[in-house]
Amino acid sequence: MLDELAAATPADFVADVYGTGDALAAFEARIAVELGKEAAIFMPSGTMAQQIALRIWSERTGRTTIAFHPTCHLEIHEARAYSLLHGLRALTCGGPGNLLTVSDFTALADPLAALLVELPQREIGGQLPAWSELEALCAAARERGAKLHLDGARLWEAAPHYGRSHAEIAALFDSVYVSFYKGLGAIAGAVLASDAATIAEARVWQHRHGGRLVALYPLLISARLGFERNVGKMSAYRDRALEIAMRLVEIEGLDIVPDPPQANMFHAFLRGDKFTLEARAHDFAREHGIFTFARLAPTVRPDVQKWEFVVGDATLELGVDDVVAAVRAIVGFPATIARRADFFRV
Amino acid sequence: MLDELAAATPADFVADVYGTGDALAAFEARIAVELGKEAAIFMPSGTMAQQIALRIWSERTGRTTIAFHPTCHLEIHEARAYSLLHGLRALTCGGPGNLLTVSDFTALADPLAALLVELPQREIGGQLPAWSELEALCAAARERGAKLHLDGARLWEAAPHYGRSHAEIAALFDSVYVSFYKGLGAIAGAVLASDAATIAEARVWQHRHGGRLVALYPLLISARLGFERNVGKMSAYRDRALEIAMRLVEIEGLDIVPDPPQANMFHAFLRGDKFTLEARAHDFAREHGIFTFARLAPTVRPDVQKWEFVVGDATLELGVDDVVAAVRAIVGFPATIARRADFFRV
Repeated sequence: MLDELAAATPADFVADVYGTGDALAAFEARIAVELGKEAAIFMPSGTMAQQIALRIWSERTGRTTIAFHPTCHLEIHEARAYSLLHGLRALTCGGPGNLLTVSDFTALADPLAALLVELPQREIGGQLPAWSELEALCAAARERGAKLHLDGARLWEAAPHYGRSHAEIAALFDSVYVSFYKGLGAIAGAVLASDAATIAEARVWQHRHGGRLVALYPLLISARLGFERNVGKMSAYRDRALEIAMRLVEIEGLDIVPDPPQANMFHAFLRGDKFTLEARAHDFAREHGIFTFARLAPTVRPDVQKWEFVVGDATLELGVDDVVAAVRAIVGFPATIARRADFFRV
Repeated sequence: MLDELAAATPADFVADVYGTGDALAAFEARIAVELGKEAAIFMPSGTMAQQIALRIWSERTGRTTIAFHPTCHLEIHEARAYSLLHGLRALTCGGPGNLLTVSDFTALADPLAALLVELPQREIGGQLPAWSELEALCAAARERGAKLHLDGARLWEAAPHYGRSHAEIAALFDSVYVSFYKGLGAIAGAVLASDAATIAEARVWQHRHGGRLVALYPLLISARLGFERNVGKMSAYRDRALEIAMRLVEIEGLDIVPDPPQANMFHAFLRGDKFTLEARAHDFAREHGIFTFARLAPTVRPDVQKWEFVVGDATLELGVDDVVAAVRAIVGFPATIARRADFFRV
């Protein structure tokens, strides 16, 4: 990857210094345009970007309570930084297994600094609300004086479902976070986009977080490259996810959520025990050179395991038949023989 | 730089993932050993590392007040993140133009979570307290139940003055931050070292700060390379700073602090106006290919400007005579001619 980055770097490239530099500013401006916002700031991580957006909306509204889906990244993957670093309080909204609805939101009575909406909702298989429902949700939040923040970690992946531009989707929100390492394949990196005054404030908060590095051009170049190369592929990824899902549901012992998928991802629920299924997947990868999953996530049912299926370049390159055959082999294998001793030789 | 990093990366290099990975762990272990601590964590920035250390000491002691020199990086360069992010309060200790002394410290009456000591004290020309004074200061803080944190951004540069190992110096402190991009020349990156339990906590705080990137191997490889190549050069840098300073003080209109220098840096105070001196330095760089300074810092006297002189590889490669001749030319130039119109063609 580093040699690829070096090759993609012009000879006269000038490194950024503490958040300034032409290449950095140009990329930020490019993404601001893509998202239809006045300004944007490149961040080392989404964890940093989203806390900062919510802190700014808290300071702006004079309120300290934010609301989001129970499976929001801030709630389950960030060690409650919004609370321990920023002194924010959070209300979860809606059920953990479903999309957040307008009626879930209106059931909250407290004054809110901001509502965070994640598109697609990753932890439930990348589901997306209907456009009219999304508009209604945002309108309801706005009526209550809450700012709207989009967790667009997978906004690129969400757009094909709506058939709308990134800017049209972002227009529903006051601030938008997007990621460059997931679907776009960069080493790391995120952008927060909003109005110019908010992004100016975000630059100070980035500094406070320790994210205004003396130089971050390796991440910048990598993000730029990922964006240029991959942002146009999202419809193809999604179409392939639909094709694969349509075939996988025919397999006994396998269910898909959502069916049909709405983005380039879905959750496949596999019947069988975790160890057995993982062992088969590892065996299959070694024997056939096709990687399916390393680990499965447990569910409330010990006999059902969850696989987050995401379509990227590797899956596109494989034929649909190859993918289906691999999954069939793993799901359909006799359950007993996988517990053999050589499993740990991976 | 990226092609250099690519060349320095073994073909079988495996990228870190969310703070884990063999190369990352090995480098952290290497630096922990260098600093004589149980454990270490690689961080994107010192701003992040130091806030985290102080927050941990605050949680550990149940106290929220920290103390440091008035020119501490946290006080003057971090937009008061320690307060706005971590809810810490700070007392400054001693005068801004002098080293922090034991009697400055004992004048503070409040219970303290931690005392931060910066070695060398950058904003006063890289001064270093006598070893006995440093030991007494640390003992006084410890007696009061305060934890000791070392801002060792330039610890590598400080060590030759004491003739002690990095670990011997670090042994006076509960936690130590070191930097890889200043004297060591990496793209960015820092390490926080301490006991194992503290570093385990620091990993969670790094995550909360948004600094546990999905991958940061470009920074890691760069830090490793900078450390391997440059950590052994600090005595040579310092000796050269001493030689140069000894010659520069002979120049009319130039004063040096500290005299003699104690690390690889010192402050040169130049008589003249800021614009004139900077214009001469830029002209000199264009005409002779020798860069001295881009900008000077103002002082309380409008007719005196401050230059932070730091010796690194570039200065080592020049002869002492060349450096002195450049400074003489810039300081001694007739004051009037520099205000010419073509200055802005830089």
